[in-house]
Amino acid sequence: MSGKKLELAPDRFFDPDPAQRRLAVELYEAAAEMPLICPHGHVDPTLLSDPEASFGSPTQLLIIPDHYVFRMLYSQGIALESLGVPRIDGGEVETDHRKIWQIFADNFWLFRGTPSGIWLTEELVNVFGVNEKLTGESAQRIYDQIAEKLATPEFKPRALFERFNIEVLCTTDGATDPLDHHKAIKASGWGGDVRPTFRPDAVVNMMMAGWRENIDALSKISGVDIGSYGAYIEALENRRAYFKEMGASATDHAAILATTAELSMAEADTIFQNALRGAITPEDSNRFGAHMIMEFARMSIEDGLVMQFHVGSMRNHNPVVADRFGADKGCDIPVRSEFTNNLRPLLNEYGNDPRLTLIAFTLDESTYARELAVLAGHYPALRIGPPWWFHDSINGMRRYFDQVMETAGLYNTVGFNDDTRAFPSIPARHDVWRRASADWLAGLVVRGMIDMGDAREMVIDMVYRLAKRAYKL
Amino acid sequence: MSGKKLELAPDRFFDPDPAQRRLAVELYEAAAEMPLICPHGHVDPTLLSDPEASFGSPTQLLIIPDHYVFRMLYSQGIALESLGVPRIDGGEVETDHRKIWQIFADNFWLFRGTPSGIWLTEELVNVFGVNEKLTGESAQRIYDQIAEKLATPEFKPRALFERFNIEVLCTTDGATDPLDHHKAIKASGWGGDVRPTFRPDAVVNMMMAGWRENIDALSKISGVDIGSYGAYIEALENRRAYFKEMGASATDHAAILATTAELSMAEADTIFQNALRGAITPEDSNRFGAHMIMEFARMSIEDGLVMQFHVGSMRNHNPVVADRFGADKGCDIPVRSEFTNNLRPLLNEYGNDPRLTLIAFTLDESTYARELAVLAGHYPALRIGPPWWFHDSINGMRRYFDQVMETAGLYNTVGFNDDTRAFPSIPARHDVWRRASADWLAGLVVRGMIDMGDAREMVIDMVYRLAKRAYKL
Amino acid sequence: MSGKKLELAPDRFFDPDPAQRRLAVELYEAAAEMPLICPHGHVDPTLLSDPEASFGSPTQLLIIPDHYVFRMLYSQGIALESLGVPRIDGGEVETDHRKIWQIFADNFWLFRGTPSGIWLTEELVNVFGVNEKLTGESAQRIYDQIAEKLATPEFKPRALFERFNIEVLCTTDGATDPLDHHKAIKASGWGGDVRPTFRPDAVVNMMMAGWRENIDALSKISGVDIGSYGAYIEALENRRAYFKEMGASATDHAAILATTAELSMAEADTIFQNALRGAITPEDSNRFGAHMIMEFARMSIEDGLVMQFHVGSMRNHNPVVADRFGADKGCDIPVRSEFTNNLRPLLNEYGNDPRLTLIAFTLDESTYARELAVLAGHYPALRIGPPWWFHDSINGMRRYFDQVMETAGLYNTVGFNDDTRAFPSIPARHDVWRRASADWLAGLVVRGMIDMGDAREMVIDMVYRLAKRAYKL
Repeated sequence: MSGKKLELAPDRFFDPDPAQRRLAVELYEAAAEMPLICPHGHVDPTLLSDPEASFGSPTQLLIIPDHYVFRMLYSQGIALESLGVPRIDGGEVETDHRKIWQIFADNFWLFRGTPSGIWLTEELVNVFGVNEKLTGESAQRIYDQIAEKLATPEFKPRALFERFNIEVLCTTDGATDPLDHHKAIKASGWGGDVRPTFRPDAVVNMMMAGWRENIDALSKISGVDIGSYGAYIEALENRRAYFKEMGASATDHAAILATTAELSMAEADTIFQNALRGAITPEDSNRFGAHMIMEFARMSIEDGLVMQFHVGSMRNHNPVVADRFGADKGCDIPVRSEFTNNLRPLLNEYGNDPRLTLIAFTLDESTYARELAVLAGHYPALRIGPPWWFHDSINGMRRYFDQVMETAGLYNTVGFNDDTRAFPSIPARHDVWRRASADWLAGLVVRGMIDMGDAREMVIDMVYRLAKRAYKL
Repeated sequence: MSGKKLELAPDRFFDPDPAQRRLAVELYEAAAEMPLICPHGHVDPTLLSDPEASFGSPTQLLIIPDHYVFRMLYSQGIALESLGVPRIDGGEVETDHRKIWQIFADNFWLFRGTPSGIWLTEELVNVFGVNEKLTGESAQRIYDQIAEKLATPEFKPRALFERFNIEVLCTTDGATDPLDHHKAIKASGWGGDVRPTFRPDAVVNMMMAGWRENIDALSKISGVDIGSYGAYIEALENRRAYFKEMGASATDHAAILATTAELSMAEADTIFQNALRGAITPEDSNRFGAHMIMEFARMSIEDGLVMQFHVGSMRNHNPVVADRFGADKGCDIPVRSEFTNNLRPLLNEYGNDPRLTLIAFTLDESTYARELAVLAGHYPALRIGPPWWFHDSINGMRRYFDQVMETAGLYNTVGFNDDTRAFPSIPARHDVWRRASADWLAGLVVRGMIDMGDAREMVIDMVYRLAKRAYKL
Repeated sequence: MSGKKLELAPDRFFDPDPAQRRLAVELYEAAAEMPLICPHGHVDPTLLSDPEASFGSPTQLLIIPDHYVFRMLYSQGIALESLGVPRIDGGEVETDHRKIWQIFADNFWLFRGTPSGIWLTEELVNVFGVNEKLTGESAQRIYDQIAEKLATPEFKPRALFERFNIEVLCTTDGATDPLDHHKAIKASGWGGDVRPTFRPDAVVNMMMAGWRENIDALSKISGVDIGSYGAYIEALENRRAYFKEMGASATDHAAILATTAELSMAEADTIFQNALRGAITPEDSNRFGAHMIMEFARMSIEDGLVMQFHVGSMRNHNPVVADRFGADKGCDIPVRSEFTNNLRPLLNEYGNDPRLTLIAFTLDESTYARELAVLAGHYPALRIGPPWWFHDSINGMRRYFDQVMETAGLYNTVGFNDDTRAFPSIPARHDVWRRASADWLAGLVVRGMIDMGDAREMVIDMVYRLAKRAYKL
């Protein structure tokens, strides 16, 4: 009745050397008990605002919304329509969730050795109690097993939030979001600590579709009539105050390049007025964006919100997919990044001010040792975010530890964040980080670079304290 | 009579951890039995077209034609003339092969820990049965031993082809090559599967010396009077059809930059007509080259030939050497590469079409994790070639596995190719890949990231199936 | 009375695998006996010219002058004033050395796992015999212990020079330095071999503050009236001859970019005359700098001085710190580098001449495998310097071995230099290199890539012979 046995090795992801592994296990066990701090991610707050919310079918939970999963299937020639990914035009896509699940299971071997494969496997075993490998043969049995679990109260989002031992979870929310779901969570009396994060990209990036409408929405929700750059800044500050009141401790900003540059009020206003009139060039939009990053740093110094800066992702590289299925469909591709020159204006102006915490994330690992570790090892305001996106993996973490820590020092990093919209994958992602951290520290101990006393402190810093402190949680 | 003993450790290149090594040996043993698939390389087909062809002296076999070998000696101040490398002007160079061999042996310690050192050692032991280290002292004894073997029928190229268990070997051939040697091989009734590969660089790159003459040769051999861009395209398609008829399954294209961009027919024709008249600028040549890469992708979709794209080698960096000794003399130096922006026009136009297989090779490892793995993990048409040239080494492979596989997935890679003109080094090169693959997989198993069932499949994929499938062999 | 015990593991920094570690220990023991060759560094020669010179207090020795140390404290919000770093304007800073030491000790945990932490710990144990961990609690006891030692004759700089077994130490000295301290050392009859290195940046870089005054100083000390480019070259050659007479075997040159380009005499003179009149543009300064690198290569061919080229550090990134505390205060940040194109003019002109030894240093590790290893594996004149600055660490060395050695070959590298102004850290820095080298070689042996006979030669090459040979010491 059952297929190939599926088990997770208790000492998985640790170096095979017995001496290092023994220490890694000891360090991991201490780390594994700590609650999860989730300071950055993309969980939909509606899952938690409605106590009766549910995840839907196994396919709705694990495949349709997860671009990590369907990008790999797509890369091997499987149409997104056949995976039930909704089309923008409402056109036909597969709706039989068992059929989609079967395609996924038939091709699950494509994920061998990938982080998605590891997270999915951990979810199957640890969240859903599956004990056979997912293959074409076992597909429907496993579907049944997950579907059955998902129908029970123990598998409602709030129940999993508690079971996962999440101490705090931050969502990511547009500047114009009324945060009704966060209000509902607070009002519900449920004890889960769920906080918004202020992400104003859609009202900053003038080339983004809908910018003009977003400014109107910002006007409306802030009650500030945005006819000038000054009013725009006022409206943003107003929204930040509201987010902060709602529990936010951080903001988040994305850009292809890390460029920062201060404009005069007059220049900023001219560009802004032009943009309001629809007369914006890519150059002006970029200059304005570079300026706004500096403005947001100034605001952070004033209101104390921690500033996250995600650099280097070219969005919607593939217009065929983006036009048909929309944004966040696996066609965001990293580009080379530069921080030493680009961050200089911001760091010169605000980087010596310890009231600012600027957390930089990169998709260009060549900047780890060359630029970010050195900058963060000097400027009081700068910290380096954990390995991001494609680098949130065993090897990605190993490269990060290898290339960042010696120069930046552990204490200029900020622990881990899971950055996911796939709620049930949260524990698996943190577990990978915890194991990778324990293994890295065990490697330092067994090489005589630190002692176990240090390592025991450091592992708790890495999985709990650093994130909490950096994000002021 | 004999010098320092030379032996190959049976478990060489594997991690020293006993648990990992045990698994690596098991996986390697399965891989070692598979025939060699050689989908890309530079073996001279005349070695195989004439049943009586021979390799000449040990020096002719191992030193004079191998720029991997003489570049290292040259870097330490040994003149290429003293190594018998022929001069373009026919000027005097060393002709005493024993004397050259002696210089090589005296300096063989320079190759300690290098891939060339490893390949040469493997050849000495496994191909020629040498069992003492190559030093100044042992030089002439080993020369005798190799020379004696080379004089026997067992050491004719075809005999070695069979002994090496080569299932298929693809050569690399200019667009104007009549493929007479491939015809002769077919006609000879010998069973070896030797196929041409269509490499049109010399009729595409307008700045390359001889381009005009090459166009004339293309006219002649295709029977198409190339007076226009349209006729040029027709001639190329004609040659591709001929190559395909002769067994070719792939094309190959080289460029310093990965730029792709579509020109209008009118623009392409203008540049082409100018070039015919000798009025070409580097800018126009680059634009034309970027356009032709897209044209070749279109042709590949139509005729099914797999498209290889080798990016990032600056040819003949050292004019002192290039002017005296010609091309391919060890003075090709990599430059930084960029794929996310540069391949975008091509991928947007053709990258969603699963009929296209575009295999990208890079010499810039910083593009592995940042660009290529992400692009190949999304676009159905794109695959990543194995570690190329200077990275075809134990560490180069380890870095490739580390940086490519988690994001691209193994199944968006294409196995191995030896890319060599040094025919007797083929088994040594494949053996390094097989051992590195087995060790990488053993490392995943021992860390609980995959199980042995997966690893046993994956190792055969890596050493046999992936190349065969990607190249349609 | 004593705090947490502090011990150095005898087999520290070696791989935990018992087989590899056993071999590493054997190789290390052979290496550890060799004298120290220090061909590049920033030790103040006054420490050695005056037999009675002393290091001052523990704080003066280990904190105030060491930007590796205070940059990390500064990055965590500790003011440089509170660490006693002198201000340019002579303004008030902390002068109580025990108080500064206490801050350092309270925060010493910030250095966990960093090279600075490792060097400092090694100095405490091996130079000063400290056997408890440095913490806030143990701070003043350890201060007493070091201060007591520093007051004894055994801890004078010359005594430590001998105890450290330094065979030769090269300082770094401006072109206008009279080298009086080197003269005094020679005249004193003391046997220590201390040599100057010719570093002309301050008379080359026209944008550097004080360039005009430095030219006057150069005029004066060389006795050449520098009214023209020709006279300038003559003055430089004159100084090189003097440095050589004083024992110098090398020069050193720094640049943000590796650009090299030859100007005509007329162009060079025009730019030079403009600069003398204070009419210099950044572009002209860069062009002149690129030209002078080529000129210095020509001079090196003529006078035999080895040429060092340090590329990629943006100096004084943080003007707030630089304006208040001056240069070399931890705010130098690396930028991306390029060598293939930039070094081409120089290498084409002089790179085939084995009389030239050009040693290139990079802070951009992405250039190791892609550019420098390939260039040095071809051009007879080019060698690759050891991992520099932020990369002079266990992981930095491992990445260097991994990415440089296969392609360049060990024999196109130049061993180690400690590059430090922190005199008592010299043995610790060499020890890290020796251990890392032994471990790397042991890893090759245990993987069957070289044999122990080779490894025993290579380890002595790496810790002694290569540096001595490359720098002609």
